[in-house]
Amino acid sequence: MHAAELIERKRNGSEIPRGELAEFIAAYVRGEIPDYQAAALLMAIWFRGLSAAETFGLTEAMVASGERVDLAARLGRRVVDKHSTGGVGDKTTLALGPVVAACSAPFGKMSGRGLGHTGGTLDKLESIPGFRVELSTEDFVRQVREIGIAVAGQSADLVPADRKLYALRDVTATIDEMSLIAASIMSKKIAGGASALVLDVKVGEGAFMRTPEEARRLAEVMRGLGEEAGLDVVCLLTDMEQPLGRAVGNALEVHEAYETLAGDGPADFRELVVEAATQLLALSDLELDEAEARERVVACLGDGSALAAYERWIHAQGGDPDPARLPRVPVVRRVAAPAGGFVRTLSAREVAGVAMALGGGRERKEDSIDHAVGVVCSAKRGDAVERGGLLAEIHARDEPAAEAAEAALLAAYEIGAEPELRPLILDVIR
Amino acid sequence: MHAAELIERKRNGSEIPRGELAEFIAAYVRGEIPDYQAAALLMAIWFRGLSAAETFGLTEAMVASGERVDLAARLGRRVVDKHSTGGVGDKTTLALGPVVAACSAPFGKMSGRGLGHTGGTLDKLESIPGFRVELSTEDFVRQVREIGIAVAGQSADLVPADRKLYALRDVTATIDEMSLIAASIMSKKIAGGASALVLDVKVGEGAFMRTPEEARRLAEVMRGLGEEAGLDVVCLLTDMEQPLGRAVGNALEVHEAYETLAGDGPADFRELVVEAATQLLALSDLELDEAEARERVVACLGDGSALAAYERWIHAQGGDPDPARLPRVPVVRRVAAPAGGFVRTLSAREVAGVAMALGGGRERKEDSIDHAVGVVCSAKRGDAVERGGLLAEIHARDEPAAEAAEAALLAAYEIGAEPELRPLILDVIR
Repeated sequence: MHAAELIERKRNGSEIPRGELAEFIAAYVRGEIPDYQAAALLMAIWFRGLSAAETFGLTEAMVASGERVDLAARLGRRVVDKHSTGGVGDKTTLALGPVVAACSAPFGKMSGRGLGHTGGTLDKLESIPGFRVELSTEDFVRQVREIGIAVAGQSADLVPADRKLYALRDVTATIDEMSLIAASIMSKKIAGGASALVLDVKVGEGAFMRTPEEARRLAEVMRGLGEEAGLDVVCLLTDMEQPLGRAVGNALEVHEAYETLAGDGPADFRELVVEAATQLLALSDLELDEAEARERVVACLGDGSALAAYERWIHAQGGDPDPARLPRVPVVRRVAAPAGGFVRTLSAREVAGVAMALGGGRERKEDSIDHAVGVVCSAKRGDAVERGGLLAEIHARDEPAAEAAEAALLAAYEIGAEPELRPLILDVIR
Repeated sequence: MHAAELIERKRNGSEIPRGELAEFIAAYVRGEIPDYQAAALLMAIWFRGLSAAETFGLTEAMVASGERVDLAARLGRRVVDKHSTGGVGDKTTLALGPVVAACSAPFGKMSGRGLGHTGGTLDKLESIPGFRVELSTEDFVRQVREIGIAVAGQSADLVPADRKLYALRDVTATIDEMSLIAASIMSKKIAGGASALVLDVKVGEGAFMRTPEEARRLAEVMRGLGEEAGLDVVCLLTDMEQPLGRAVGNALEVHEAYETLAGDGPADFRELVVEAATQLLALSDLELDEAEARERVVACLGDGSALAAYERWIHAQGGDPDPARLPRVPVVRRVAAPAGGFVRTLSAREVAGVAMALGGGRERKEDSIDHAVGVVCSAKRGDAVERGGLLAEIHARDEPAAEAAEAALLAAYEIGAEPELRPLILDVIR
């Protein structure tokens, strides 16, 4: 393995044979290739991209770097999983998991920590008093068997290559490359052992993928990787120009997921949960077509069974599912509409910035998160507002923070004379 | 300084303000920015290039990383220097320096070690028994004052940034980027303290620059860097499709330089020495125009004064200037022309490969060099040869090595019915 020579070929636009790329990654994970050569290769990949075969070689090498859990063999059933490429206000897993479990399909998800405006799924769950996100593989499997759902932090033994590569990408400006994103996500899903996956690819200014075309390409790459590894993947392309649902902030999002499971909650968030759950059930071993699956999903949101599954799940991992027990902040500030009309845009990116500034996210791995802070966007795109009417609520630790957040949040809204409509679900790629 | 953010801007094609780039490099040299971030930046620079201002910022930061010798102030005279971008059979410094010194212009050159088919100037000089390339800055200055010429290894205190960056570029496939090459060369020339420089930019398959257009761009960049730093630069663009002169191999090249100083030697090599010396004298403090300078150069090659300057120089650095004392190999093999006609091409790159395989070069810094081995290309482009006539001589350590070299050397020659002519000096950029 001549590392510099492989880097040079990639830099010059040649395709690296799958086995060679896999060997480079394996040698890097073993510490035989130094960070600086991996960094140079990553930057060359950022410029040149990877072919489908190269991406699969990379994914295979990453899966092979650690242990692989075969959930189907251990449970004797197809387990379904869900992944989102990350967006603002994305609390989908918190509602989707219980819905799927309530419909009798096993749901098992191993999740990473998020960097960004709010935490990832694990951080949101940790805003629930008592909730434990660390489960051994044994406990994870047993919990899926017994109550049909588990969501846990990834074991350190699962795809150590990704941990090492992601940390390097993070400090070398090589995060946002499609093949690297696809390999990172899919290696963890393949190693995690689910049989089917719904992949929610976010599109818009609040997401990695800015255009539907980019998102579609990413979706195709990930479906291809799943197919090669025997993992059924359905991709949703969903809007991320504005936040998903109303709540942005860890505990606030848990609260919104709870309301949605109780049959209430924002229409767009409910729509996404129903669509994602429908696709997962259609991929499960329940032998349902999409129409039957959708009917069952809607029923479980109306009859309390989804909420019951949520409560069983939170209890099973040591948490208190009562939303009244979620942490709160002392300062809640009402933001009034400066003019009447229709909300034309609500910038996901700017709302994310507000949540971040309030303390709800982390810039670096070691930063701590304030679970209680955040924003509730009462008015969203297309909604009519009156001058002085409620636009949003800010949940802040103190008045100065609320003050600053209010100015920034007002800048995130654009109010105009005509409503602007745009669907949430842009496409379903089966 | 947010290193990842600066890398991202460069990656995206933004221009980095000169001061910021300088700060990144300074922090890297101090060890505050790790190799992997510098490697990612270098690869981004490979793809995006650097603007003139960025290249100057980089050069300035590199110069500032170490000590700077002000030769003009210490000698009270303009000192001239010469640099080549590197080619096959390039022993120009060995003849040029004595010619310039014989014409009464002080010549001082600090040189690096070469990687490649044969060594750099220092390695060639070390094939002379007793020659010392390590001179303190004091000894270097005194020798230039006393005998008008010194050529020494670069002090470790001169541009430590280049040492560190070059080592990183070497293992991350980021050597061959024009701005980085220009900054690396010019930072050392600026720190070395000469007042005027002739830069020999080699063009062709045996050089970094494959086309005259690339070479011209590099020449312009380096001239611009010199101008900003108060260093007068004249660039020669010279052919490197075939080796320069006939000898390729350390001691063999010293021998050829000696013959040339004695008024003999290959025509192309002599032509280059005369042109480069003429330009240097015209840039010196002797107040000569080009015609006067050329006349003086030609005279000193005819009257023995250039050879006398060579002998003084070699003696001053502890060496024995007698060419009969140069190391020799036991095996000298005559390579005969397989057909009659004219030499149409003599591949510089393939001849380099032969010299390397014989042991005359080094792939890694720690490799040792066999000073005595090499090739003498008796027939060069445009020369008429008879079937069975002398094409070249191989100087090898043993018969098997000579055998392998002969086959490779025959493949480097193309003999045809018509002569193919191409000038050696493609342009002089004043």
